[in-house]
Amino acid sequence: MSTLKGKILAGKVLVKPQAAEEKTSSGIIIPDSAKEKPLKGEVVLTGAAKKDEAMEVKAGDMVLYGKYSGTELNIDGEDYLLISQSDILYIA
Amino acid sequence: MSTLKGKILAGKVLVKPQAAEEKTSSGIIIPDSAKEKPLKGEVVLTGAAKKDEAMEVKAGDMVLYGKYSGTELNIDGEDYLLISQSDILYIA
Amino acid sequence: MSTLKGKILAGKVLVKPQAAEEKTSSGIIIPDSAKEKPLKGEVVLTGAAKKDEAMEVKAGDMVLYGKYSGTELNIDGEDYLLISQSDILYIA
Amino acid sequence: MSTLKGKILAGKVLVKPQAAEEKTSSGIIIPDSAKEKPLKGEVVLTGAAKKDEAMEVKAGDMVLYGKYSGTELNIDGEDYLLISQSDILYIA
Amino acid sequence: MSTLKGKILAGKVLVKPQAAEEKTSSGIIIPDSAKEKPLKGEVVLTGAAKKDEAMEVKAGDMVLYGKYSGTELNIDGEDYLLISQSDILYIA
Amino acid sequence: MSTLKGKILAGKVLVKPQAAEEKTSSGIIIPDSAKEKPLKGEVVLTGAAKKDEAMEVKAGDMVLYGKYSGTELNIDGEDYLLISQSDILYIA
Amino acid sequence: MSTLKGKILAGKVLVKPQAAEEKTSSGIIIPDSAKEKPLKGEVVLTGAAKKDEAMEVKAGDMVLYGKYSGTELNIDGEDYLLISQSDILYIA
Repeated sequence: MSTLKGKILAGKVLVKPQAAEEKTSSGIIIPDSAKEKPLKGEVVLTGAAKKDEAMEVKAGDMVLYGKYSGTELNIDGEDYLLISQSDILYIA
Repeated sequence: MSTLKGKILAGKVLVKPQAAEEKTSSGIIIPDSAKEKPLKGEVVLTGAAKKDEAMEVKAGDMVLYGKYSGTELNIDGEDYLLISQSDILYIA
Repeated sequence: MSTLKGKILAGKVLVKPQAAEEKTSSGIIIPDSAKEKPLKGEVVLTGAAKKDEAMEVKAGDMVLYGKYSGTELNIDGEDYLLISQSDILYIA
Repeated sequence: MSTLKGKILAGKVLVKPQAAEEKTSSGIIIPDSAKEKPLKGEVVLTGAAKKDEAMEVKAGDMVLYGKYSGTELNIDGEDYLLISQSDILYIA
Repeated sequence: MSTLKGKILAGKVLVKPQAAEEKTSSGIIIPDSAKEKPLKGEVVLTGAAKKDEAMEVKAGDMVLYGKYSGTELNIDGEDYLLISQSDILYIA
Repeated sequence: MSTLKGKILAGKVLVKPQAAEEKTSSGIIIPDSAKEKPLKGEVVLTGAAKKDEAMEVKAGDMVLYGKYSGTELNIDGEDYLLISQSDILYIA
Repeated sequence: MSTLKGKILAGKVLVKPQAAEEKTSSGIIIPDSAKEKPLKGEVVLTGAAKKDEAMEVKAGDMVLYGKYSGTELNIDGEDYLLISQSDILYIA
């Protein structure tokens, strides 16, 4: 994983999205249904805690998040997704 | 029940949904009416308390919740439902 | 009245609805008009107080509440209504 | 005035509506215009103070309130109106 | 000015509206434009301060307020306007 | 600049609008584009600080603000604009 | 970079937008996709901290922000963009 020197705002999480099909060693499988599928990714960067919300994830955590969460960013040639921590569904 | 090693955010509850028809030993029956039917499930994982909301359920609790609550997740091959604690209608 | 062993969340009230036509010993009559009619019921279970809202009703209280308040639940074969305390109009 | 033994929630006021046409001894007259007319009534019961709102009316106060405020209740055969204190326009 | 014996709720101001055309001794003139014209009146009664809002006007103050602010009231045969203090545009 | 003897509510700023075309000594130029143009004016009067918002402008400050901000007032024959401090875009 | 003598309100950030195509020394590349592209710019001025939000950027920071964020301002002949700090996606 490339090391990012930048930072993000409080309450935010920068995620490196992963391919939806593969089954990781932690065993997360994306359900194959008509419903909106959660996606997974690795946390790369986290912002500071907000006044009413502690940060509960850290860099390296594998997380599930909703399909339409966040904003895509390309930094140093890599694609990332910036989401709010509250968009995270599960931390493997 | 499989043991999950992951965690979920504050105020959230991960539920293992159960078949709507069966009558459990705790006697919960889903009403058969035209209205939206509550569903039941077993609490598998709970997040931390939020600033304004204590956690009132624990793993192992059988709960009723609204039909359209939460987000379906498949973890380690099992289907779960992630809901906010405030979506819980009754704790058996 | 059957005794319920379960519990409900903070700020919630579980009510055993009563027939709208009868006149109770406490003299509550449902007005017969074109407007939305309040319903009455007996409080069976109450949740804990919320941070900004003390619980002002207790099990056994006869209450009036709006027609479209709450969610119907069937527990141990009995029909109940789960409402927020703030939906209660009058405590007899 | 009949004495009510029941109670109402914090921040609420139970009013005994009075005929809109009469001119009371306190001299309140309902304006006769095309605009929505305020109504008047006597406060019969008041709830407790809320965290952010002291109770500023008491039983016996004559009050003006908006035409579409509150919920009609019939208790012991008498018609009342349950309003939020904040719906009160003037306390005579 | 008639003396009112009643009172109004916290954060509220009772105003005796004045004719929009005249130019008062304090020199306030209502602009003659296509835009919504502010109106002026004399403060007759003020409610108590609210938790988050001090009262900044007092009886006798001449104020400007928006055309569609408040609720008309007729008390003791006089027309008044009940507005929220936050509807006041200028205190002469 | 005429001296105003009145006052305005907390968080509010009374501005004397200036002609949009001229270039002031402080060098502020209104951009000539299809987008909504900010306007400029001189602060004439400021209200008190609000509980959650300190006052950051003072009488005499030249400010930029959005085209559709505020309410026009004519006081003592002069046109002013009453805006919320939060409508101010830049303080020269 | 020209030095600005003015100031902006709490929580706000004044940005000097940069051309979207160039690749900066810090390696930020704007993704070329059908989705809304983030833009980049250099922070020129920051407002004070707000009660619930610390300022996390400073003059000189290179930032990414959403395409439709903020208000364009021309000050001393230069084009700037005024955004809320919360509109910032990434700080390089």
